Amino acid sequence: MTAFEYDNQIVIVDCGMMFPEDGMYGIDSVLPDFSYLVQNASKVKALVITHGHEDHIGAIPYLLKEINVPIYATKFTMGLIDHKLEEHRLISQAKRHVIAAGNEVTIGDFRIEFIHVNHSIADAVALCIKTPAATVFHTGDFKIDFNPVDGDIIDLQRIAALGNRGVDLLLCDSTNVEENGYAGSESEIGKTFYDLFRGNKKRIIVTTFASNVHRVQQVINTAAVYNRKVVINGRSMETMVSVASDLGYLDIPKNLVIDIHEMKKYKPSQLVVITTGSQGEPMAALGRMANGNHKYLQIDKDDTIIISASPVPGNEKMVAEIINKLVDLGAEVIYNKFANIHTSGHAKREELKIIHTLVKPTFFMPVHGEARMLKLHANLAQSLGMDAKNIRIQQNGDVMQLSHKEFKKIDEISAEPVLVDGLGVGDIGNIVLNDRKRLSEDGLFIVAITMKNGKAVSGPDIISRGFVYMRESEKLINGAKGTVQKALKNCENKKVTDWKTIKSDIQEALFKYLYKETQRKPMILPILMEA
Amino acid sequence: MTAFEYDNQIVIVDCGMMFPEDGMYGIDSVLPDFSYLVQNASKVKALVITHGHEDHIGAIPYLLKEINVPIYATKFTMGLIDHKLEEHRLISQAKRHVIAAGNEVTIGDFRIEFIHVNHSIADAVALCIKTPAATVFHTGDFKIDFNPVDGDIIDLQRIAALGNRGVDLLLCDSTNVEENGYAGSESEIGKTFYDLFRGNKKRIIVTTFASNVHRVQQVINTAAVYNRKVVINGRSMETMVSVASDLGYLDIPKNLVIDIHEMKKYKPSQLVVITTGSQGEPMAALGRMANGNHKYLQIDKDDTIIISASPVPGNEKMVAEIINKLVDLGAEVIYNKFANIHTSGHAKREELKIIHTLVKPTFFMPVHGEARMLKLHANLAQSLGMDAKNIRIQQNGDVMQLSHKEFKKIDEISAEPVLVDGLGVGDIGNIVLNDRKRLSEDGLFIVAITMKNGKAVSGPDIISRGFVYMRESEKLINGAKGTVQKALKNCENKKVTDWKTIKSDIQEALFKYLYKETQRKPMILPILMEA
Repeated sequence: MTAFEYDNQIVIVDCGMMFPEDGMYGIDSVLPDFSYLVQNASKVKALVITHGHEDHIGAIPYLLKEINVPIYATKFTMGLIDHKLEEHRLISQAKRHVIAAGNEVTIGDFRIEFIHVNHSIADAVALCIKTPAATVFHTGDFKIDFNPVDGDIIDLQRIAALGNRGVDLLLCDSTNVEENGYAGSESEIGKTFYDLFRGNKKRIIVTTFASNVHRVQQVINTAAVYNRKVVINGRSMETMVSVASDLGYLDIPKNLVIDIHEMKKYKPSQLVVITTGSQGEPMAALGRMANGNHKYLQIDKDDTIIISASPVPGNEKMVAEIINKLVDLGAEVIYNKFANIHTSGHAKREELKIIHTLVKPTFFMPVHGEARMLKLHANLAQSLGMDAKNIRIQQNGDVMQLSHKEFKKIDEISAEPVLVDGLGVGDIGNIVLNDRKRLSEDGLFIVAITMKNGKAVSGPDIISRGFVYMRESEKLINGAKGTVQKALKNCENKKVTDWKTIKSDIQEALFKYLYKETQRKPMILPILMEA
Repeated sequence: MTAFEYDNQIVIVDCGMMFPEDGMYGIDSVLPDFSYLVQNASKVKALVITHGHEDHIGAIPYLLKEINVPIYATKFTMGLIDHKLEEHRLISQAKRHVIAAGNEVTIGDFRIEFIHVNHSIADAVALCIKTPAATVFHTGDFKIDFNPVDGDIIDLQRIAALGNRGVDLLLCDSTNVEENGYAGSESEIGKTFYDLFRGNKKRIIVTTFASNVHRVQQVINTAAVYNRKVVINGRSMETMVSVASDLGYLDIPKNLVIDIHEMKKYKPSQLVVITTGSQGEPMAALGRMANGNHKYLQIDKDDTIIISASPVPGNEKMVAEIINKLVDLGAEVIYNKFANIHTSGHAKREELKIIHTLVKPTFFMPVHGEARMLKLHANLAQSLGMDAKNIRIQQNGDVMQLSHKEFKKIDEISAEPVLVDGLGVGDIGNIVLNDRKRLSEDGLFIVAITMKNGKAVSGPDIISRGFVYMRESEKLINGAKGTVQKALKNCENKKVTDWKTIKSDIQEALFKYLYKETQRKPMILPILMEA
């Protein structure tokens, strides 16, 4: 999420959600911090969306609950937003404007032009944001595909014209700046599908990102050529196919798609299943197949499974595990190590050079990437002749001031990630996360004691979870009880009566005892109760 | 670990430890199941080790505590084993035999030949295991390096001769069967070091696997050429350099290595630091530098950091995070995306083909790889003309019978991974792990009540950890108390007095209440105490 401000008018670009990082125990998703926008709600005029991936639209419902801002997006992107708003029952109150690529909208003093780009989702755009003070070109997520599935090449011509008129600041996708060369065309993957389908007598199961409508289209095209019926499986795949075909972004021949219950009428060689789970998620359709608990699909040696995706960083092991299980079930599994079955949606180095050369901005701020990528992208811009002092790598929350003449940091606002757990948004902080971490490592150890007039009258009762298997640890538990009794005795002898001290004495004695016996550090919780 | 048995004599090959997988919450390491060996201790004649990596020697101390078996290994491998046995205070009782590659030892009816191979650690060997019944060739971990740093090429000549005499069964490393071509020579990396050192005015920090002595040697050689002093930093690097130079596997010019405290006497351009942490481990030396809490090394723009390693699968995000932090500190970071600074120690497909062709075994069992790799390796063997029925993919614990004529499964023994947590070996099972998982996701919620004559007389007191931040959740806690009181009242009305039912009623009512309010599912622990 980026906010652009001019003369007390704010236009927001994108409103995405992140998946939790390692260490964010039990967290469902991560949102941007909206507090600056909420404080300045009256200034917020528009939310403009570049494309329909979760990391660009996922937080929209949460923002709309705070500020009812009008949304501007292309048709397919809006289709996905609508679906999300329906789920959150926000659709009736939301103000939505569908803008086709190639058009410009005027919002207060802002003029915002939507420029068609290629990406791993249909209908993605870059934005040219013009105010009386300056012009910004924001690529969004993009690649350059000279042979795209829908025939619509990124509008390089228009980008060149905008560059020629003068762009003050370029914000450019840095995701693939570590990769040399070009990302390659999506249509190349279609050729691989033909190769894999030709002469194949097995059932073919293809998994990919549901939002990659062009990939799904190519599977459908190949299935039609080889006379295979298509089963659409998995919740997000079903949603995406329905939204995309309703809006005309998927062209499905009549009678090609069958219901999953009709599968038995066909031989394996007459079937293709398009399904979810390309990231190794154990609860997605492919994960359930691999674990043998998919309701309708059992995997065996009559299956060819094509994983038409690369693992997102961090998912490598999960994907590998699913592949291992599918191989164990006898399936032939085709994955990215051996076949050209996935192409990235993000520009690689040579493509980035083309964009820099066409936009030729005065200032450059690399975006959409981790710190090392932003630095590499800055170096790339410098290698093309840009002055290092005109290139700024900034942190989330930095407030920058831009004019034709300068681009500088003037302030900072709070931009810490906001954690979502269940219904709670932002209520989980470091204390709770640290407790979860500690509980996950060595479990917990509870000592309950009933007290009367400063003396223990019942207990200590001991409950542990995630520490040792209690039924087999009688000696340890008895030792712990003895330790607690000794600590209580000491308190009594020292005439200590306040519970806080008694509790911390018990805790300390138990910690030492348990660590000596097990070299583990469970969370110790003494509970004192009045009789 | 593999055990070979002939006429009541058992020879064990390798005894490694694994790092915990995802989902093994709080587990320190994972051992093989020794129970079959312990039950047959009198038969166990030898432990033969192929090389000194942790996944081949890490579990030796645990095995020796159960069975005092003589160990056979090459000099450098034994140096590392000795160090480990000293740490575990087992060195005095252990029987150790150093065998040089090229030699054969006779152990009962076994004759075991040590054959030199190349790998990412010095002094690695393959084994040819001969008994009157059959001959097995076990590659261990290997690659083919025609230009190794120590000049000692894998003994292909001898492998060919053994193949010519007749090998019944080949066990072959499958780690890199997904990779086409050749792994490439370790000495290529030395050339990259020269390129990176030449003309560099910054301090250079190189991190790699401590056990890769040849890599360390090449850094030292390059430092000497460019007149830089060398600092050895990080516990495992210090240990490895000391063992390797004592045993003559590292050749360090006099006065080249300086103590870390002497660093201030030198300019950045006169220094190289060789350190640990190439896998992104936050507590290793490089991790501490990245986090700004290394005692002696502060990172800034005068540092070039070379990460001479690839992330082991599963470590990709940790390594990326360290790189991001080092870049943020201003350092130039060279990693595997942009420079030829790491080569694998495992044979790729073309190398595997060479070994299969030289050994030409009757039977083949792919080893050292995940399920998908074993399958690919079986396919590779078939592509070289082997009959599919002579290739067997087996599971851990399978007992196979081998003769010149057949290779078949005859039994199974227990081979579940044994989990180590602190001092506990094998005491952590699924119940404890599931509790840790649950606690890590939504924390815990304790209700304590004092009872007298079947009635609550004190409480409910509530303690939660890892669930919500209690100080900000007064309403929720009060609601929970009300829910518990209502459940208690119901029990009283229904004349329920047994604590088990009361507890489960409380649990159920609270579960519903908390889920409705938060959509989280903490572990709920009701504690009833006698007054």
